[in-house]
Amino acid sequence: MIARSGLALTAVVGPGDDAAVLSLAGGLLVASTDLLVEGRHFRRDWAGPKDIGHRAAAANLADIAAMGGLPTGLLVGLALPGELPMAWVDDLYEGLREECQQFGAAVIGGDIVESQTLTIAVTALGDMKGARPVTRDGALAGHRVAVAGRLGYAAAGLAVLGRGFRSPGSVVAAYRRPEVPYLAGPQAAALAASAMCDISDGLLRDAGTLAVASGARIVLDAAMFPIPDVLRDVGSAMSVDPLSWIFTGGDDHALLACFPPHVDLPAPWRMVGWVEDGAGVAVAGLPEEGRELAGSGFAHWG
Amino acid sequence: MIARSGLALTAVVGPGDDAAVLSLAGGLLVASTDLLVEGRHFRRDWAGPKDIGHRAAAANLADIAAMGGLPTGLLVGLALPGELPMAWVDDLYEGLREECQQFGAAVIGGDIVESQTLTIAVTALGDMKGARPVTRDGALAGHRVAVAGRLGYAAAGLAVLGRGFRSPGSVVAAYRRPEVPYLAGPQAAALAASAMCDISDGLLRDAGTLAVASGARIVLDAAMFPIPDVLRDVGSAMSVDPLSWIFTGGDDHALLACFPPHVDLPAPWRMVGWVEDGAGVAVAGLPEEGRELAGSGFAHWG
Repeated sequence: MIARSGLALTAVVGPGDDAAVLSLAGGLLVASTDLLVEGRHFRRDWAGPKDIGHRAAAANLADIAAMGGLPTGLLVGLALPGELPMAWVDDLYEGLREECQQFGAAVIGGDIVESQTLTIAVTALGDMKGARPVTRDGALAGHRVAVAGRLGYAAAGLAVLGRGFRSPGSVVAAYRRPEVPYLAGPQAAALAASAMCDISDGLLRDAGTLAVASGARIVLDAAMFPIPDVLRDVGSAMSVDPLSWIFTGGDDHALLACFPPHVDLPAPWRMVGWVEDGAGVAVAGLPEEGRELAGSGFAHWG
Repeated sequence: MIARSGLALTAVVGPGDDAAVLSLAGGLLVASTDLLVEGRHFRRDWAGPKDIGHRAAAANLADIAAMGGLPTGLLVGLALPGELPMAWVDDLYEGLREECQQFGAAVIGGDIVESQTLTIAVTALGDMKGARPVTRDGALAGHRVAVAGRLGYAAAGLAVLGRGFRSPGSVVAAYRRPEVPYLAGPQAAALAASAMCDISDGLLRDAGTLAVASGARIVLDAAMFPIPDVLRDVGSAMSVDPLSWIFTGGDDHALLACFPPHVDLPAPWRMVGWVEDGAGVAVAGLPEEGRELAGSGFAHWG
């Protein structure tokens, strides 16, 4: 927490959470920044420029939602190789703009420079709309753990693309254009969520970060993760347990939040576990052959 | 101008000016983003990591000041080659932080990723403090043109470094750590400046951008640019007319503004010319041998 008196614009949440929150004359502004580097965060042969624009915007706007803020503006810095066609850049911008327009936000600024490495720097700004920012450190024993948005779809899509396939289209599309439940963020803040983050590194890892920040133990109930048919089919075709995509896949940018026990969870929120005293992340109710998955979660976060 | 009703946070100045301005519950937030790529915007052999941090922050914070805003927060995205020592990164951050601390701002967020090209993405946020944003398009015939901050020092430092020298120290230091007149930005807004921008591409070019945006002609009076001894000495040693550094050098991040004729200009603002009906940029009072310089300004902006 960085708090500086004597300035109307004060950082009330600084580095270490999903986004920075700034107080401005009584209002609260949310700001977050992400860098995407070609070959590491996207590949031009796996997604077109419009899709890459959607993904770049979504990854960053999700951080705003994960604080409980409504995303409102995007600043975009582009470092482009000289030989990149301008049409590619135009389509990238169109994807960025379209992702923003879903909820009335806009690309409000940017910078373009030349670089041998195609790099997209995105800064999202958002408005807390009078709500209290939902940080990662407020989960208490007895609270419910819930998720909004899809899990495992983008990871399945990435696995499909990685093997040179382009179908099934639904998981490939999920990787190319994540469907972020943006409004579920402000909704959770209004429902007095005690902790929240976006799921960008995989559910186990992000739940682990939240557990560490809150000084509590998060238990996920495997029975509360019904496996969608498409993930079961792709998993079967690729000999991959679809639960591993659900528990460890990023890129869907679903939201993870904890709520006091008295809160009735409206859609799109669905309960997936609970908070206990203790530390780390546990997965309850896994069948025998799934223990290894939970074990890696324990090993990493226990 | 992007104005969207129905949102508390509204972009009142979008792309195309120095920075984006966002209205938040009555307050006005300023946001700007810049990308700096190694080899193009900085060189590790010409400046240490702390200096590069100062420069990266200054380049972006100057955009906030150039709107009339007080810079308040910085978000920093770093794309780093794997072999870069952590101590280098720590020093870079220290430079970024120190530049912010001059006026009570702070680094409030960021992202670190790996990339083969060292890239620094900086987003600055600022507060209009109740003032009206000063855009580039308000200069009117009869207004005075003024500058705050140094001109030509960083260009002279760059020229020295480019020839493999490290002295005189004052111009090398000016390149490594520009002294941006941050408070002159809000001061100009309070003095009802009609147009303002920071000088990052050189005085002639940036005055040209301002002239085009305002639909007016800017005349700079060569007699109002006394040549500092150190620039005269370096120029003499390198057979370069120091006026070319003053008129075409970037990197000092001085501020250029126009003021109504009745405004008495307090320090650090100093008058350098005036606004006329017409187009382009002219330099008045150049000696015969300096015409070529003004000519290139005309050619580019006439």
